[in-house]
Amino acid sequence: MKIAIYGYGNVGKGVELATTQNKDVELFGIFTKRDPSSIKTITNAKVYSINDLMNYKNDIDVLIICSGSATELPVITPNMAEHFNVVDSFDTHAKIPEHFKNVNEKAKITNHTALISCGWDPGMFSLMRLYSRAILPNGKDYTFWGRGVSQGHSDAIRHIKGVIDARQYTVPKTDAVEKVKLGFNPDLSTRDKHFRECYVVVEETADKNDIEKQIKNMPNYFSDYDTVVHFISKDEMDKKHNKLPHGGQVLRSGHTGLVNEHKHLIEYNLTLDSNPEFTASALVAFARAVDKMHKRGEVGCFTVFDVRPGDIINMDGDDIRRELL
Amino acid sequence: MKIAIYGYGNVGKGVELATTQNKDVELFGIFTKRDPSSIKTITNAKVYSINDLMNYKNDIDVLIICSGSATELPVITPNMAEHFNVVDSFDTHAKIPEHFKNVNEKAKITNHTALISCGWDPGMFSLMRLYSRAILPNGKDYTFWGRGVSQGHSDAIRHIKGVIDARQYTVPKTDAVEKVKLGFNPDLSTRDKHFRECYVVVEETADKNDIEKQIKNMPNYFSDYDTVVHFISKDEMDKKHNKLPHGGQVLRSGHTGLVNEHKHLIEYNLTLDSNPEFTASALVAFARAVDKMHKRGEVGCFTVFDVRPGDIINMDGDDIRRELL
Repeated sequence: MKIAIYGYGNVGKGVELATTQNKDVELFGIFTKRDPSSIKTITNAKVYSINDLMNYKNDIDVLIICSGSATELPVITPNMAEHFNVVDSFDTHAKIPEHFKNVNEKAKITNHTALISCGWDPGMFSLMRLYSRAILPNGKDYTFWGRGVSQGHSDAIRHIKGVIDARQYTVPKTDAVEKVKLGFNPDLSTRDKHFRECYVVVEETADKNDIEKQIKNMPNYFSDYDTVVHFISKDEMDKKHNKLPHGGQVLRSGHTGLVNEHKHLIEYNLTLDSNPEFTASALVAFARAVDKMHKRGEVGCFTVFDVRPGDIINMDGDDIRRELL
Repeated sequence: MKIAIYGYGNVGKGVELATTQNKDVELFGIFTKRDPSSIKTITNAKVYSINDLMNYKNDIDVLIICSGSATELPVITPNMAEHFNVVDSFDTHAKIPEHFKNVNEKAKITNHTALISCGWDPGMFSLMRLYSRAILPNGKDYTFWGRGVSQGHSDAIRHIKGVIDARQYTVPKTDAVEKVKLGFNPDLSTRDKHFRECYVVVEETADKNDIEKQIKNMPNYFSDYDTVVHFISKDEMDKKHNKLPHGGQVLRSGHTGLVNEHKHLIEYNLTLDSNPEFTASALVAFARAVDKMHKRGEVGCFTVFDVRPGDIINMDGDDIRRELL
């Protein structure tokens, strides 16, 4: 299977690395908006200009689109689905239905196969929410994120005047997690579930009190949370906060029995040293399924909920039944 | 969807209870080898004799077979797959390929849909092994069971002369679990992974030393493990060991990056008050998928690896994308 990468940021680099771990996957190349000659790839993969992409329609089985969710993917994925089989990691939960509709229409016009919102959340966490809810309909599920770096929240802080750099860690509240694990099925507000911990480098002349206030009162991003702000030096930022760890957990607690006398807890935990590399690894596994689905004539837009698990692994049916069932 | 239950043991009772939690599922009835009039069901479900089952071929969408794995399912599931859409929880891992082949042949003759080896292991644990291995090909996975009652091991002890009753708990070794979680990717022998803890009631005249020796030296079941035997009274057995809790975890630790510099840990944990009721809840969810697959003309034998996750839940595509993705 030949895959190509659209966009060479953190996730694009992760996909490049992931292709080296999958023997059945060949990396055709990386397509970028930038000048290809200005880019040195990690594995010496070929770099092309995005302007030349259409010349390679017949050379690429699946195009993995690694652009930004906020403004790029809503435009790029539908457009590309008209010409390629595509996978993206669109993660703006509220806009998934609209994105799905747009991609589905375009993919169907030319019989392509598209998979959107793949990764770990949305992605594996979504699958866990679905499997757990289907098996324990009488119960409640909870998703906790972190401890890990939220790039969206870090960016939001960087946009404040006087801020040079910022890193925001999402931290689950231990009390809340414990209550869920003990089976209390608590009602938890946004504030009950997570802390937001911010490390910020500011200009020498900046008003720290004012910046802290701006962060803590920022709607959607911080105002609904208990937020702590640490001002640090550029040097400390570069030394102690130069990684992108993340993770989290999906929990479902439910009951069975005649009078709900039996309690069950399902937990799925991820502890990731590199959020973009794990996301990229999921994208490559599901790109394999997209290729198989396309060859079977399954066209249109899909999500992880539509993918037969056996399609994402490089093993045949006999082997997975013998080794993994 | 109308389901029927074949066999009214612990899992059969669990399926009966699970149907009450799923609004789209109607329990047609329970089929038993015993005299139907001798059976009082938990929810007042109808009881029929197994001899009359063929009279109801057109009234049942999916037949959930809740007989024993060791000797019953290998015969019953293929036979029933010729007449019904079926689901079973066949769990003799080594014999799954043969069972799959037998059920597949029979189901295809009459265009029925069959799903074998459903539950939590095989079942959800199998899915976790597959998803995790596909996403982190450079890694290692581990399955730990317990702490929980193994019915097979309890039965094996009960067959020893002089034993009145027995309960065997499988207990994961904390050290081994910790090593895996820390990312050491250890090589673990059978003995390294689990203890076997036995509670045994014996006849007054029994030779306890001899029984303990017989248990500890029993091949396949105990000889490869560190086993501890506690002799207790019938009264203590009935009071303290009258439940069937179980659970366990699937872990995969893997690396990504140019020189494997990033570590990732995927954990799936189950903590179940009632092993049979959780298994039964999974059977009902996947029976829903079998019904949908059959209506789409997908016939033959399948496993959880072939089931689109979206098919196991009572929600449509728009809703699952909006609420769960």
